[in-house]
Amino acid sequence: MKLSSAICAALLASLGQADRGKPSRPVYKDPRASIDARVADLLARMTIQEKTAQLIQGDMTNYLNLTDGAFNKTGLEWNMEYRANSVWTGLYTEMTNVKKAAKLAQDYLLNETELGIPTFVQSEALHGLLVLNGTIFNSPIGIGCSFNPELVEKMGRAIAKECRALGINQVFSPQADLARELRFGRVEECFGEDPYLVGEMAYRFAKGLEDNGVSAMIKHYVSRLRHPEQGINTGPVHGGERELRSTYLPPFKRAILDSGATSIMSSYNSYDGVPTVSDEHLLTEILRDEWGYEYYVISDAGGTARLDNAFGVCGERDHECIIRETLPAGNDAEMGGGYWSFEAIPKLVAAGKLDESVVDTAVSRVLRAKFAVGLFETPFTGVADDKILDHINTAEHMKLARQLDTESIVLLENHNNILPLNKKANVAVIGPMAHGYVNPRRHPLDGIRSVGQGTITYAKGCERWSNDESGFAEAVAAAQAADVAVVVVGTWSRDQNELWGGLNATTGEHIDVSDLNLLGKPITEPWISEEAAALVQQFYQSEQGGYALADILYGEANPSGRLSVSFPYDVGTLPISYDYLRSGRSWPNPGKVYPNGTLVFGSNYVLQNPTALYDFGYGLSYSTFKYSDVSASKTTVSADDTITISVTVTNTSKRDGAEVVQVYVRDEVASVDLPRFRLKGFQRWLCQRGSRARCR
Amino acid sequence: MKLSSAICAALLASLGQADRGKPSRPVYKDPRASIDARVADLLARMTIQEKTAQLIQGDMTNYLNLTDGAFNKTGLEWNMEYRANSVWTGLYTEMTNVKKAAKLAQDYLLNETELGIPTFVQSEALHGLLVLNGTIFNSPIGIGCSFNPELVEKMGRAIAKECRALGINQVFSPQADLARELRFGRVEECFGEDPYLVGEMAYRFAKGLEDNGVSAMIKHYVSRLRHPEQGINTGPVHGGERELRSTYLPPFKRAILDSGATSIMSSYNSYDGVPTVSDEHLLTEILRDEWGYEYYVISDAGGTARLDNAFGVCGERDHECIIRETLPAGNDAEMGGGYWSFEAIPKLVAAGKLDESVVDTAVSRVLRAKFAVGLFETPFTGVADDKILDHINTAEHMKLARQLDTESIVLLENHNNILPLNKKANVAVIGPMAHGYVNPRRHPLDGIRSVGQGTITYAKGCERWSNDESGFAEAVAAAQAADVAVVVVGTWSRDQNELWGGLNATTGEHIDVSDLNLLGKPITEPWISEEAAALVQQFYQSEQGGYALADILYGEANPSGRLSVSFPYDVGTLPISYDYLRSGRSWPNPGKVYPNGTLVFGSNYVLQNPTALYDFGYGLSYSTFKYSDVSASKTTVSADDTITISVTVTNTSKRDGAEVVQVYVRDEVASVDLPRFRLKGFQRWLCQRGSRARCR
Repeated sequence: MKLSSAICAALLASLGQADRGKPSRPVYKDPRASIDARVADLLARMTIQEKTAQLIQGDMTNYLNLTDGAFNKTGLEWNMEYRANSVWTGLYTEMTNVKKAAKLAQDYLLNETELGIPTFVQSEALHGLLVLNGTIFNSPIGIGCSFNPELVEKMGRAIAKECRALGINQVFSPQADLARELRFGRVEECFGEDPYLVGEMAYRFAKGLEDNGVSAMIKHYVSRLRHPEQGINTGPVHGGERELRSTYLPPFKRAILDSGATSIMSSYNSYDGVPTVSDEHLLTEILRDEWGYEYYVISDAGGTARLDNAFGVCGERDHECIIRETLPAGNDAEMGGGYWSFEAIPKLVAAGKLDESVVDTAVSRVLRAKFAVGLFETPFTGVADDKILDHINTAEHMKLARQLDTESIVLLENHNNILPLNKKANVAVIGPMAHGYVNPRRHPLDGIRSVGQGTITYAKGCERWSNDESGFAEAVAAAQAADVAVVVVGTWSRDQNELWGGLNATTGEHIDVSDLNLLGKPITEPWISEEAAALVQQFYQSEQGGYALADILYGEANPSGRLSVSFPYDVGTLPISYDYLRSGRSWPNPGKVYPNGTLVFGSNYVLQNPTALYDFGYGLSYSTFKYSDVSASKTTVSADDTITISVTVTNTSKRDGAEVVQVYVRDEVASVDLPRFRLKGFQRWLCQRGSRARCR
Repeated sequence: MKLSSAICAALLASLGQADRGKPSRPVYKDPRASIDARVADLLARMTIQEKTAQLIQGDMTNYLNLTDGAFNKTGLEWNMEYRANSVWTGLYTEMTNVKKAAKLAQDYLLNETELGIPTFVQSEALHGLLVLNGTIFNSPIGIGCSFNPELVEKMGRAIAKECRALGINQVFSPQADLARELRFGRVEECFGEDPYLVGEMAYRFAKGLEDNGVSAMIKHYVSRLRHPEQGINTGPVHGGERELRSTYLPPFKRAILDSGATSIMSSYNSYDGVPTVSDEHLLTEILRDEWGYEYYVISDAGGTARLDNAFGVCGERDHECIIRETLPAGNDAEMGGGYWSFEAIPKLVAAGKLDESVVDTAVSRVLRAKFAVGLFETPFTGVADDKILDHINTAEHMKLARQLDTESIVLLENHNNILPLNKKANVAVIGPMAHGYVNPRRHPLDGIRSVGQGTITYAKGCERWSNDESGFAEAVAAAQAADVAVVVVGTWSRDQNELWGGLNATTGEHIDVSDLNLLGKPITEPWISEEAAALVQQFYQSEQGGYALADILYGEANPSGRLSVSFPYDVGTLPISYDYLRSGRSWPNPGKVYPNGTLVFGSNYVLQNPTALYDFGYGLSYSTFKYSDVSASKTTVSADDTITISVTVTNTSKRDGAEVVQVYVRDEVASVDLPRFRLKGFQRWLCQRGSRARCR
């Protein structure tokens, strides 16, 4: 075990080290020394209070007034004495505020503390850095539809660049959770339902961050999204060891180990009754002993306090219990958002109720992350105020956001090839989601007006969510006067601070639904699929989303997104993921209610269909593709073999396009009840028009 | 291990035994010998073919033509050579057919086979013996609402009496499954959602059978009903070891061990990916090694073949694989309904692919059950044809059915105390479920006419399930002309043979729903709760159900049923059981759509309520009860302590009634995420009117 030897080395170093006052550079400040040696050296110099502070998250509002910019030095000193792990900055605030907070923190630590341990400066970044003016990418559930990990890595790089310009060096991204319970409000945060797709996307995102000097915090380890009970936020998850290892863990393993991610956020839920924040099996036996992970795990906001207020595992504000449940189990650090139990660590150690070696192990992991990210060499990476816009929301980043958004749009229906639209068509754009919504900055109406050459009219029709039909007449008139009506309907999400302020939302953290009819994500309204001339799925847009949508509608871009989640017929048929176990949905025998009232009885379900309305991986194109010459490099294989699947795809249409080639595998005769098949490879190929052109 | 010593004893007996021809009575025929000795002695005399036959279910239609009564002797010989475990008789056929089949089988085995091993004669009996004219009790989900285990034991005794009159000695009852997925068509077969209530009911039912000479077959071991995925019949169940042991297993352990149940049916589903029919952990490690169960487990109909056609664990009709997966794991015998893999056992043993000791273990368990039930002493228990009706559907049994049904009815709403009805009221009975339905034999209309003294009119209104509204006018007119309208609406279930014949149903095995609005079980239509003057829940009725309902409506009986399952607001809020883990439904914040279109936004759910519309254990009465003097015999306890909870309940109304006193426990500070509370005791107390009268 590396950590044990690190601690031994620390003891030796401690015995032989020079006095603190001696001017020669200590090992931990030597960038040529190994991280093991630097961690050991530094740890040996730390008091129990200094160690404890490394395990608790701080916050910029402890010392910076975001309204008037006033700096409170006492607040900074207090923050760093007790909560030096990190400084939280994830608020919609001016970029200069964040940069100022970062600079104040690192300067103070470097110049005014004895050991000079830099801090993590943190933010959110699931779809772009959370700060005013940060580039807004489209939502992860949409990004998953691009099936384009390379672009996701570019997004990671772009986000890292924006972070560094402000001195941010750690973001709570990516998620490696699976979107398998569609009622849950946080489906939009996931890359999709499939372990392989999600693993590839999360890995590339994290790699883009870590390769560019920002600590990726993989979350939520583990199993948040497959079935929080009732689809309710923070609900318990039911499952066993086999499902854990075969479905939930693989995307985490891929994202954590292969990207070099330096931090992990644990999860709110319990799994088979065991709270994950104190689950030694997950946090130590699997993560450290099996996988060899060397960095640290931090609880989610308020996650430790849930042992008291959600799980009843600890009494009310029983800090000792909370520490003893979490820290030895492998949850190394504590985030804010609840209360701060970890502050009691020194008292517990002094009373002999907690072995200091347990604290040392956790602190070593935090320090290891700080060394690995390079904080000791470059604690502050911010640029001059007048240079910020050379790094943030640049033309290059906007272009990337537009490309990613365009590739994420999925064409679900296109009856009689009604799309793409003729640019000269007169278009009525209808719906409250088409214009006037705060984010994204570029709305569908803006995009359509930028490409369309006919008369473009707009009618709101109704408020985003209301039963008031007084605006319908105007919308109907607009549609009748135009050649084509583009109706934009959907859901909306909000920042938590907006929610706490009393504003409404229909998706997002805390916001769960019991109904997927025109108000969930995905929306399942089979009648729209049948009645509308075409149906285009664009999940929450990037700031360039209106342009991306217009490009698709008018054929400036050819739809190439494929669904990252399966769409059910209705909420009563959940769960719906494509990779259900082979014994699931046996002999579907759907019933149906026809519009004229005719009832056709089935058995599952009596009047509904248990299969997907649109399956994972589904999506139409304006082109047509032909598959041929499918072959496998081996037909008899052992578990360790690599198999190459070859296929020729040709574009048989008169329009260039892109095709996502997907490979699914199935264990024909297995030892247990396995998924009917699972995605094991995909490539996005560009396909030039003409039947001779092979796609690549 | 008892079985091992039994097999050793068998080998010793075999070495020293007399030749088969010798006239002295062999040990296995000696009722004074121990069952261990009898099993060992008999096993040692059996050929591998005779052993194999004990592990395969037969069927009376192999030798008896149910239409013309013709007996096919060759068919009987064949049945007993290959499928001597049992004779299946569970069809809606004349009672004399079943009795004849039983007599033919046992006479042949006793008189014309060398060893004379009697067979199990089997039927279904979840709510009464499945035969024409057998007493029909109400459905288990309704019986659960009675909270009256003593009555359930009486029902078990009555069913045993009816069985024995026909020579039936084994029934596929009771179920110890939990009704926790309300979309699933088989919810009606369960006693409820709660492990304790279900355990008590299943235990008493099994005890009533076993104490009276009928083998109870506890099913479906284990975990059928908590979440077959999507609520679909035979779907996989997701869960872990903790949930298995704390929620699913307890009712089985209670029913199996405490009743002396001599047989168990394994389950169709997989649990965490492992098919239960081949799950050694469930079938051997827990059932035999931990619990010490000595009798046998048989697969459900077609259950072994599912390893091929549902799970993909065995290739197509790979009998060797199926045997090797199931038999050593502890699934001892094979039911029909699929194909018969176990017939290949002798071939496998001969080829050295299966150790005969594995077969011996399974056969020993079957024989042990036959000895324990007394089949060797009394193989045939049928009575003379002209005496059958002294045992079946007797006045006593009908009275029991009526009492059980009455106690099972739950009064959900009673606005302004509209119930009980004045007997002189003119009543319009409305709805297709009120009259003319094949079973139960006594419909609501019959019952209401038997008690009501006013004018009772009937209007069907519509067919059971149709969008045809042409009968509405007649129904509305009938309601307007009467003082009160009793509207009977609900679901219907069918025998499988009717389903295969193309008839429709809305609940039952194979028949699952995606919607609980007026077509599921329970029905969840909050508007009915609010708009109707009163709401009475009667699950599928007994043959006396119309009378039971009328007694409740007119106040001849006071409602005392309590819900055995929680009712959700709608399907989008499932699962809904009351004993969710403490971290579930945290801080419910329901939203609502008001009839006038007003939308009030919540977060879980945005426009719905995640809590129960009616909770488990809920039910109104025409009386009012007062609880006082609650106390516990101990307040500090260890895990093995027994605690007595005392409470005084008084009936403060002017009407006699019954109250179900329920005790729930909660582990205030637990080591894991536990149910928020769980039922641990209940008593049904009769409560005389008057505020001084204590209930007992």
